[in-house]
Amino acid sequence: MEPVKVGLLGIGTVGSGTWNVLKRNQAEIRGRAGREIQITMVADRNVARAREITNGECEIVDDGNLIVTNPDIDIVVELIGGYDVAKDFVLKAIENGKHVVTANKALLAVHGNEIFRAAQEKGVTVAFEAAVAGGIPIIKALREGLTANRIEWVAGIINGTTNFILSEMREKGLDFDTVLKEAQALGYAEADPTFDIEGVDAAHKATLMSSIAFGIPVQFDKAYIEGITRLDSLDIRYAEQLGYRIKLLGITKRMQNGIELRVHPALIPASRLIANVEGAMNAVLVNSDAVGPTLYYGKGAGAEPTASAVIADLVDIARVEAVDPEHRVPPLAFQPDAMNNTPILPMSEVTTSYYLRMKVRDQPGVLADITRILADLNISIDAFLQKEPLEGETLVDIIILTHQTQEKNIDAAIGKIEKIGTVMGKVTRIRLEELE
Amino acid sequence: MEPVKVGLLGIGTVGSGTWNVLKRNQAEIRGRAGREIQITMVADRNVARAREITNGECEIVDDGNLIVTNPDIDIVVELIGGYDVAKDFVLKAIENGKHVVTANKALLAVHGNEIFRAAQEKGVTVAFEAAVAGGIPIIKALREGLTANRIEWVAGIINGTTNFILSEMREKGLDFDTVLKEAQALGYAEADPTFDIEGVDAAHKATLMSSIAFGIPVQFDKAYIEGITRLDSLDIRYAEQLGYRIKLLGITKRMQNGIELRVHPALIPASRLIANVEGAMNAVLVNSDAVGPTLYYGKGAGAEPTASAVIADLVDIARVEAVDPEHRVPPLAFQPDAMNNTPILPMSEVTTSYYLRMKVRDQPGVLADITRILADLNISIDAFLQKEPLEGETLVDIIILTHQTQEKNIDAAIGKIEKIGTVMGKVTRIRLEELE
Repeated sequence: MEPVKVGLLGIGTVGSGTWNVLKRNQAEIRGRAGREIQITMVADRNVARAREITNGECEIVDDGNLIVTNPDIDIVVELIGGYDVAKDFVLKAIENGKHVVTANKALLAVHGNEIFRAAQEKGVTVAFEAAVAGGIPIIKALREGLTANRIEWVAGIINGTTNFILSEMREKGLDFDTVLKEAQALGYAEADPTFDIEGVDAAHKATLMSSIAFGIPVQFDKAYIEGITRLDSLDIRYAEQLGYRIKLLGITKRMQNGIELRVHPALIPASRLIANVEGAMNAVLVNSDAVGPTLYYGKGAGAEPTASAVIADLVDIARVEAVDPEHRVPPLAFQPDAMNNTPILPMSEVTTSYYLRMKVRDQPGVLADITRILADLNISIDAFLQKEPLEGETLVDIIILTHQTQEKNIDAAIGKIEKIGTVMGKVTRIRLEELE
Repeated sequence: MEPVKVGLLGIGTVGSGTWNVLKRNQAEIRGRAGREIQITMVADRNVARAREITNGECEIVDDGNLIVTNPDIDIVVELIGGYDVAKDFVLKAIENGKHVVTANKALLAVHGNEIFRAAQEKGVTVAFEAAVAGGIPIIKALREGLTANRIEWVAGIINGTTNFILSEMREKGLDFDTVLKEAQALGYAEADPTFDIEGVDAAHKATLMSSIAFGIPVQFDKAYIEGITRLDSLDIRYAEQLGYRIKLLGITKRMQNGIELRVHPALIPASRLIANVEGAMNAVLVNSDAVGPTLYYGKGAGAEPTASAVIADLVDIARVEAVDPEHRVPPLAFQPDAMNNTPILPMSEVTTSYYLRMKVRDQPGVLADITRILADLNISIDAFLQKEPLEGETLVDIIILTHQTQEKNIDAAIGKIEKIGTVMGKVTRIRLEELE
């Protein structure tokens, strides 16, 4: 069979990883795919560096337009990142009848509906295994491996930077700012880490998974997003004493009246496999009706792990390129006419359990007041921890784990608790997921 | 599009699971696949029970020949199990131009080469996701998700019965026979548990994974197989004290001069995620050059988890049915002309680390003799544990963990150690895998 001709938009970290893995494992990949995957053209503003990486074995241009309009290119790999330029090139590539492979979660989470619609109209594929959890074939698992299942929920550690920070905070007892600096020095966090530590990156990925799991359009604007910047290492310690670890989770869950889509730190039982995913590793836990829980674990970032996913997409496309579009795996798992409009629930209607920490005066009646407020809102208590006051102090930490309730109830409870005269300052609230 | 018409050979546990999941999730599955998957015919000796399960919605016959020769059937699902009858039907189905889906690991591990060759000649597909690790989409991950990678090794907990037994032995400190009886009472072990506890079932699965990972023919007869029946709960305790857990692993590994293919109990560091896979759950850890380690976890058996894999195969085939065979994913991952004949190494040439336990007289010089023997064979010691003799006893347990060496060296060492006068009885030897 004819080689598949690929044009690369951007040859930075992931681009050069893709080039290198394709070269190194050429025989292996052709042996599986039955045809060769050739990068025949690369566009990068840094032409000299691109020449160096590709060692003169490929045409280098500084304008991506020369790739997306080139009739000899079958598949365009977009590795520019960001929104505007990347979106223009992706749409232009589709317009020119090319398949697209991208690692750009931000682009697809925000503009995915437009892009997938354009691809469907032109009968081309937009593949994005690399956009979620890097080298873990989670998109393929959700879309093809679990195709028999009604998926109930997906919960993932899908941002390596934050998982590294939380692991270090727990293991070394350090605070957030200290560990963030360490992570930056080690290259686990970027100079501007906002997208990672504020949960935006995880929300991009959770948005894509919500769409694939439940057959709904991508709706990043409806995602609830809370990062780890306000997390106190004290809570990590208390959680551990109660048998939990705190992880930044991307969660999407099918409920009676809608779909939950949220990213926030959460206590999870330390005995769960996913609670033991440490450092920069990623893992996604999927619960579905036929197979039950399945978990997928691996590196969520890095040049070659991401390249692994990009190339898997290239091979998939190389296989089905000659096939009529209706026989292909749809980008969002469901056929366009089988998508539904189940709404994303507002955070106030999300159901979960809670960890509450408050500082109270060590005197009779405080606890009665607090538990009365919870009882009145039908919130039942699962566990309770009162720390001895330090020598000479009169304030004690009280930690309460609740059973499941709706977020609006816990918000109401916290509002009332904070008004009790013997409760000092704010109540710290962290969500808790049993992941059963 | 036309519905895909499926004939089921056998409607026992997995067959009825497949029927039920296809019915229950009909809309979901059609929404993904773009066409309906219909079981139109079932063959089972127990016609009455088959009628009851299918509720008169499908033709029931008592002779599988009526399915494999039926021109209206597109895909035959073989769920009979065993060798002879299953093999005849599978080959006859292929001969009649039908695609085949099977959960029969024994059949494929032993007769796979003949079956895949026949399928290739007729241009049909033989799919077997359900044959390895039940509902975990590990075949898809190895074959498609990791297609960019040179796979280095695969190590899996791929038999739920033995993992349940080992978990119970460790958690409750019970011995093998007691836990086996408990497992049988709970339905985790069969009345005749030989295939599970002797490692044969795991070896069937490891054989299939070795072929997919490395592009070699299936060679079950070359697999080294050791079960868990001789495992002493004492060793599980000692392993735990040294920071390890004992699991029955199916391992296949690419080495310089060949491929390792082996099933045996192994110590693995308790800190590894896979060491924490407990009960009847399965997990497969894959190490490959681009993505690094990835792990896949879930239920390895049961009606609906297995059905989940069977149906995923049906949908895959429904998609590519109309496609010429050379564009499909090859059953053994590599195109037939890209397969290789790298030999499976004999167990004596396998490289791994070892846990050795021996009973010695508590007197000077014993340790010197033992360590001299190891040193002479170039076996270096990684850890050492000497247990205090019990009150009034003169014999002590010595446990040695070695660094990597070839099995023939450790065999030679054990032979010599057992000849030392102060070493009593046999040396217990369990392999140790760091899984790094």
